[in-house]
Amino acid sequence: MPTTFVSIGGLQHHVGEQVAVPGWVMTTRSSGKIAFLVLRDGSGYLQAVFPKTEIVAGAWDRFATLTQEANVLVTGTVRADARAPGGYELTASDVTLVAPSVDFPISPKEHGTAFLFEHRHLWLRSRKQVAIARVRNEIEHAISEFFYDRGFIRVDTPILTGSIGEQAGELFATDYFDLGQAYLAQTGQLYGEAAAAAHGRIYCFGPTFRAEKSKTRRHLTEFWMCEPEVAFADSDDNMRLQEELVSYLVARALERCQGEFKELERDTARLEKVTAPFARLTYTDAIAKLQAQGSDIQWGADLGADDETALGAAYDTPLFVMNYPRAIKAFYMKENPADPRTVLSNDCLAPEGYGEIIGGSQREDDYDKLLARIIAQGLDPESYKWYLDLRKYGGFVHSGFGLGLERTVAWICGIPHIREAIAFPRQIHRLYP
Amino acid sequence: MPTTFVSIGGLQHHVGEQVAVPGWVMTTRSSGKIAFLVLRDGSGYLQAVFPKTEIVAGAWDRFATLTQEANVLVTGTVRADARAPGGYELTASDVTLVAPSVDFPISPKEHGTAFLFEHRHLWLRSRKQVAIARVRNEIEHAISEFFYDRGFIRVDTPILTGSIGEQAGELFATDYFDLGQAYLAQTGQLYGEAAAAAHGRIYCFGPTFRAEKSKTRRHLTEFWMCEPEVAFADSDDNMRLQEELVSYLVARALERCQGEFKELERDTARLEKVTAPFARLTYTDAIAKLQAQGSDIQWGADLGADDETALGAAYDTPLFVMNYPRAIKAFYMKENPADPRTVLSNDCLAPEGYGEIIGGSQREDDYDKLLARIIAQGLDPESYKWYLDLRKYGGFVHSGFGLGLERTVAWICGIPHIREAIAFPRQIHRLYP
Repeated sequence: MPTTFVSIGGLQHHVGEQVAVPGWVMTTRSSGKIAFLVLRDGSGYLQAVFPKTEIVAGAWDRFATLTQEANVLVTGTVRADARAPGGYELTASDVTLVAPSVDFPISPKEHGTAFLFEHRHLWLRSRKQVAIARVRNEIEHAISEFFYDRGFIRVDTPILTGSIGEQAGELFATDYFDLGQAYLAQTGQLYGEAAAAAHGRIYCFGPTFRAEKSKTRRHLTEFWMCEPEVAFADSDDNMRLQEELVSYLVARALERCQGEFKELERDTARLEKVTAPFARLTYTDAIAKLQAQGSDIQWGADLGADDETALGAAYDTPLFVMNYPRAIKAFYMKENPADPRTVLSNDCLAPEGYGEIIGGSQREDDYDKLLARIIAQGLDPESYKWYLDLRKYGGFVHSGFGLGLERTVAWICGIPHIREAIAFPRQIHRLYP
Repeated sequence: MPTTFVSIGGLQHHVGEQVAVPGWVMTTRSSGKIAFLVLRDGSGYLQAVFPKTEIVAGAWDRFATLTQEANVLVTGTVRADARAPGGYELTASDVTLVAPSVDFPISPKEHGTAFLFEHRHLWLRSRKQVAIARVRNEIEHAISEFFYDRGFIRVDTPILTGSIGEQAGELFATDYFDLGQAYLAQTGQLYGEAAAAAHGRIYCFGPTFRAEKSKTRRHLTEFWMCEPEVAFADSDDNMRLQEELVSYLVARALERCQGEFKELERDTARLEKVTAPFARLTYTDAIAKLQAQGSDIQWGADLGADDETALGAAYDTPLFVMNYPRAIKAFYMKENPADPRTVLSNDCLAPEGYGEIIGGSQREDDYDKLLARIIAQGLDPESYKWYLDLRKYGGFVHSGFGLGLERTVAWICGIPHIREAIAFPRQIHRLYP
């Protein structure tokens, strides 16, 4: 009978059958009469049991040569076993070494962070890193479904842009043929606004870039951001969309990633409480609250990571902090008619001290006010001509936000640093591998 | 009774009701007694009919001031009408100008290409451009579903990379802090291979960059690519995955984008024939076939756009051209054991003269052969150290491919140039808007 090649994830359909499973060796151990091999292939983990007297000639000796991450082909009979990870074991009859692995750098012992990131291409194979990547995959597909189901059009905004963005001086630049310099986009939002006038409800979702010298656990120089933009939506509508999205993503992860949360030892009780509506606090009230708690923060200052943690501690849900001072926010945010010192903005702070995962706002739709803000911030109006056009030809109330993917994944996974929430993190001191 | 705000796409739930619809004016016309306004809001198109004697005082005069792309609020009663676009009309009672639009640059008359791309941020609102964007949105979500449903893990590969890529000299470079230059990724594949060893089946999907001076209808400097990579899959498996994906995407568009195809005047009969299996031809047979047709192409030369069109003309399905000469393909493609002058590669050529939409290959999994190729191509082995590690620690048979999103969308939409298949195309002479 020819042997069927099966992935670990597909074993459930082959109970009692003779199969061949390709994969990589995680661990081996043996007593005098029986040996165990734990195999991984990306679709799952499998324990293969080798009874010495029942396996083919030579297999016992071949087993003895196996090392961590060797690529092997294990043949045997599939057995359902409720105690086994994944629910199945293999009673092996043979093992073949396909490709060796000598002195795999990442042993089960502890390694320093720098070493692990230097070997990120191999570290990705570790159980915990696999679990984080699977949660990220779930969140990304959930984002695609969330917006598709609600009639949003996905619009991919450009990375290479003229001199446009949030903050000059934190841009990566590249020579662009005869057109001078191009800059890597810090946000797709401005382009998203143009697309919202075409499609009503849009989102972009892709990498964004900040040449910031920040070295915190919440910063990367390259990170993914999901940025919806909605025509005829004001700041309140915007926050409702945010809480709908965030609670949807958390619920999806809770529904489909229990295995990953177990691997990550994530306490999911806190995540269960992430349901709409989220708590809301104006910036002005937030400052008063911090001052009442003994902080010396003054109205006008941006909230630091510690302030965000202190504010969020009182709530189970994420917290919206609304209507920040205009002076510390981007030029495109709409002036708050009720208090022109402030703008119609909000940050969304994740619980458990994770801080800002979303920044959003209603956009300035008044041509003259927007132009004045562009000039006041020392930006070149000529570069923003097309953006100003959106206020010239059928200007419209609209709002949008940016959700940082790595911050969201780090929070949901309960890991301390966002650099593990992306396959190949880019930081100011890291460009390899 | 308070008026309900409704989007055009939501009118079906409000037949017979009084509603208010925000949107932009496309066209207006009037006779002495009745006026018509076609409105768009991104969710659909709506004709509002204004009977002069039945509308509110002042509305007739307000109507007369409306211009193309003015932002308006139209109130009226929803009426089902099978002849109307979308199936509904509005018997209007009033219209309010929210924001004017004076001399909108893109009138219904013909404009030159350069002018249209200079006003791309406004041109996006045109019916045909909206239809293309909606097809792209459908294809993108279908890609997400296709891979999710098949257990692939989405892995976002970095844009900022060390000196690694397919072809030196066609890279965009940027200063990267104290680490020298970073280069914008031409492909995520090499990183995808590392991730395939962790997850078995992965894909990346994001922007890629080529600083090529090509000015053809098939080239952009920034374009989106979907790149799956599969462990334990050979070149045959790879082509089966390609034809499964491409036929899935076409079938999805046929199922859900008939309105868009009508708008684009796309003859869908040719698309209906795109089913697996696709036609297959080796490169060597392709050369013989071209020579038999009178071409003077010689074995070893790359196929040009005209060659691809000539080859594809014989088939209704896309065509795989397999096993190209090693000398004209990238260093990472696996040597063909049956003919070491060639590699285990394939291009997938779309029908109707659209040419290459996919390039794929089995990857070289032999450490020594790969190192020799890297050196032979004048690349720096030190930069590829991590990539070589994938052959050092449990090397594995694996294959993958890259599907160009804009080329695929252009083909499915039946448009002549890929620059309309992305919201803000980047070409060597275009970085604005």
